[in-house]
Amino acid sequence: IAKEVAKLLEMKAQLGGDEGKHKFVLKTPKGTRDYSPKQMAIRERVFNAIITCFKRHGAEVIDTPVFELKETLTGKYGEDSKLIYDLKDQGGELLSLRYDLTVPFARYLAMNKITNIKRYHIAKVYRRDNPAMTRGRYREFYQCDFDIAGQFDPMIPDAECLKIVHEILSDLQLGDFLVKVNDRRILDGMFAVCGVTDSKFRTICSSVDKLDKMPWEEVRSEMVGEKGLSPEAADRIGEYVQLHGGLELIEQLLQDPKLSQNKLAKEGLGDMKLLFEYLTLFGITGKISFDLSLARGLDYYTGVIFEAVLLQQENDHVEEPVSVGSVAGGGRYDGLVGMFDPKGRKVPCVGVSIGIERIFSILEQRVEASEEKIRTTETQVLVASAQKKLLEERLKLISELWDVGIKAEMLYKKNPKLLNQLQYCEDTGIPLVAIVGEQELKDGVVKLRVVATREEVNVRRESLVEEIRMRTSLP
Amino acid sequence: IAKEVAKLLEMKAQLGGDEGKHKFVLKTPKGTRDYSPKQMAIRERVFNAIITCFKRHGAEVIDTPVFELKETLTGKYGEDSKLIYDLKDQGGELLSLRYDLTVPFARYLAMNKITNIKRYHIAKVYRRDNPAMTRGRYREFYQCDFDIAGQFDPMIPDAECLKIVHEILSDLQLGDFLVKVNDRRILDGMFAVCGVTDSKFRTICSSVDKLDKMPWEEVRSEMVGEKGLSPEAADRIGEYVQLHGGLELIEQLLQDPKLSQNKLAKEGLGDMKLLFEYLTLFGITGKISFDLSLARGLDYYTGVIFEAVLLQQENDHVEEPVSVGSVAGGGRYDGLVGMFDPKGRKVPCVGVSIGIERIFSILEQRVEASEEKIRTTETQVLVASAQKKLLEERLKLISELWDVGIKAEMLYKKNPKLLNQLQYCEDTGIPLVAIVGEQELKDGVVKLRVVATREEVNVRRESLVEEIRMRTSLP
Repeated sequence: IAKEVAKLLEMKAQLGGDEGKHKFVLKTPKGTRDYSPKQMAIRERVFNAIITCFKRHGAEVIDTPVFELKETLTGKYGEDSKLIYDLKDQGGELLSLRYDLTVPFARYLAMNKITNIKRYHIAKVYRRDNPAMTRGRYREFYQCDFDIAGQFDPMIPDAECLKIVHEILSDLQLGDFLVKVNDRRILDGMFAVCGVTDSKFRTICSSVDKLDKMPWEEVRSEMVGEKGLSPEAADRIGEYVQLHGGLELIEQLLQDPKLSQNKLAKEGLGDMKLLFEYLTLFGITGKISFDLSLARGLDYYTGVIFEAVLLQQENDHVEEPVSVGSVAGGGRYDGLVGMFDPKGRKVPCVGVSIGIERIFSILEQRVEASEEKIRTTETQVLVASAQKKLLEERLKLISELWDVGIKAEMLYKKNPKLLNQLQYCEDTGIPLVAIVGEQELKDGVVKLRVVATREEVNVRRESLVEEIRMRTSLP
Repeated sequence: IAKEVAKLLEMKAQLGGDEGKHKFVLKTPKGTRDYSPKQMAIRERVFNAIITCFKRHGAEVIDTPVFELKETLTGKYGEDSKLIYDLKDQGGELLSLRYDLTVPFARYLAMNKITNIKRYHIAKVYRRDNPAMTRGRYREFYQCDFDIAGQFDPMIPDAECLKIVHEILSDLQLGDFLVKVNDRRILDGMFAVCGVTDSKFRTICSSVDKLDKMPWEEVRSEMVGEKGLSPEAADRIGEYVQLHGGLELIEQLLQDPKLSQNKLAKEGLGDMKLLFEYLTLFGITGKISFDLSLARGLDYYTGVIFEAVLLQQENDHVEEPVSVGSVAGGGRYDGLVGMFDPKGRKVPCVGVSIGIERIFSILEQRVEASEEKIRTTETQVLVASAQKKLLEERLKLISELWDVGIKAEMLYKKNPKLLNQLQYCEDTGIPLVAIVGEQELKDGVVKLRVVATREEVNVRRESLVEEIRMRTSLP
């Protein structure tokens, strides 16, 4: 037997030892990441700015499950449907992870027969995309959505959505930005007068949507080559999609001999004019551009669409500002709720989605570059001891502090060295140390040390809480 | 042709009209739910209480993806592994939705070689259980986890976890509660001295775990019948698992002629004694019970385990307090991080998980019963108009208010009736109305109306912001 075992061991060695053993890979799934405490601290700053804005505009908040019935998502995303994550069929319902927050919102409205709501929703969505994670694109990422549902007078809620984008991007101080605005009705009208047949509207719209990533020549050859559009029609589209401007462009197009004859385009242009009047009252037209090349990929938009892009910083010494990527987008989708309602009842909706991940990437890089020290805890005081055998006294004191709401920590050692305790405060930014010692216990005091100045004062035990509060209250 | 069509229509009618048409079901997946704005308001109160406590104890916060590589979860949950949701294989990695936050935390520590951290993590987890949703059990539900990782002196972090449970359950005012405590080492030692073979420890432990749901007789027959334990061994276990108490019980068991001879049990009892000493210093032993019947289902625990249950309210006129369900649980898991580390390096961990859904259900019922009116927005002022044709003035004023951080709303109508505007404030709890009218515009004032008292004052336009702040600041 011993001989047999030796032979087997030799064979195993030849085979490379552990080769038979499954090698476990220690990683997060492709396109996903963990957030460290430092990243979370930055993330919470961004969320706070966004939530504050949403609440300023009177929004309620809802939440929906991370997965939906597969059929809830079917037929809502056009060509992007292939990016939906499905769950395995383990018996029971067929489920998919949500792809955005808009379709679940529409499902929620139809299911609860809600015809009137202003809500925000901040949650993760899932897309089996090929992520460029360095540019802040992931397969699991947050969306921060604000939507207004209900039958209202034209363009008032639409204008508020743009105001919100303007407020958030200004608040976050991400540098210069531009919000491009267009309208699906203007696009469709434009396609019609350029000679595109109705059945090709959506697919030609998808091609136009690529204009922010590829030059016109490539988009044109996709339209003519892949999608069978006539070169003349493509060229007519090519003329329109170069146009961008403000009120004067809208007026000009309202006089356009072809567009002005098209009912859809005329409606869209009329509303666009109204929108710009409201945006003028809000004082934000300086960063809004009516842009005929903006198309947006999703199928469900029916009216105004918009997208906010950050512009290259001035100090990058670039002649003309260059777009470095979309950070918010949205639009009007008046038909989506009706797709869920058994009787097809429509609830007009308009909304905006803030793309938090790219914003977060930018701020993270900025913090790295500035070497700003970010605290990841809010601890006000470390309960420490100067001598050995004082664990019980530390436990008693820290318990008293917790019970009155003081944020306190201690080292989980029976007899920690004072130096280690002070070092812990330096490392984590704790501003105060409450030191218990034998003499202090006898005198009924605690030595309170200010970490930054090394100042030490004896504080009577009964005044300690007040003293800590006073010294750590925000100015 | 007309005849042919009529025939076909008749056939269709016979077939039941829409039968051929796919019937779309408007619902959330089984075991999941939406949160309405009112439910979210209650949920945020609970989260705030919990986060405040975690921060008071100096915890950092992290986040991990909602899904993990399937193999990350493999072999961590024992019999419960069948409840894991898998994603469909769409090419690429095999993924599963997280089952808890503990295994992702251990994966995070091993992956980032972190040996020392105190963190919390609040996120949804997924279990393909048969949910009893009325009792607050779902397939998608939140966990609120606090864990301390690192090599420390015994029972200090363990005691802090119990202190945290005590603080949170007290803060939330859910009624009387009890925290049951035991130790896996005491359980294993007890099994050994009762004559259970090592290989049956885990499965007998699973049986003991059912004692909170079924009577001893049923658990005993499972042990003897299904799991092949001798009736004598089962009866010896039966005697131990009846025991519960405090320090005096620990002392008694330390003298137990059989248990005291078992190394594991002795270690566990020694630590349990230390734990109770620390809990005495924290002043919380009144709600802690050392309970030999507590087993906890999960495989990964290695030391102290605990579970908090709410007791039936006194005013329910029940003789003895009855447990109405677990609302928090946790324990020590010193081996889990080592399962992920390529070199098997261990990082001792102890943590607690707050079961928010049941707490939330209780508070929701309480709000329903009390008819307390919960505001779902924070809007301070509604910008209204008394006459027609003042939309532009309303837009200008609301924009000014938003820009200085006042939470303001307006109705999205060109010419809303004043009565409708006031009614909206009543319905949503907005305390103030800023009314613009022609005369007021001429006079450079805004009429500010207090909704509750119907008091109206003219406020100069330049003092409006100050006046709104003053009237809506918290006392």
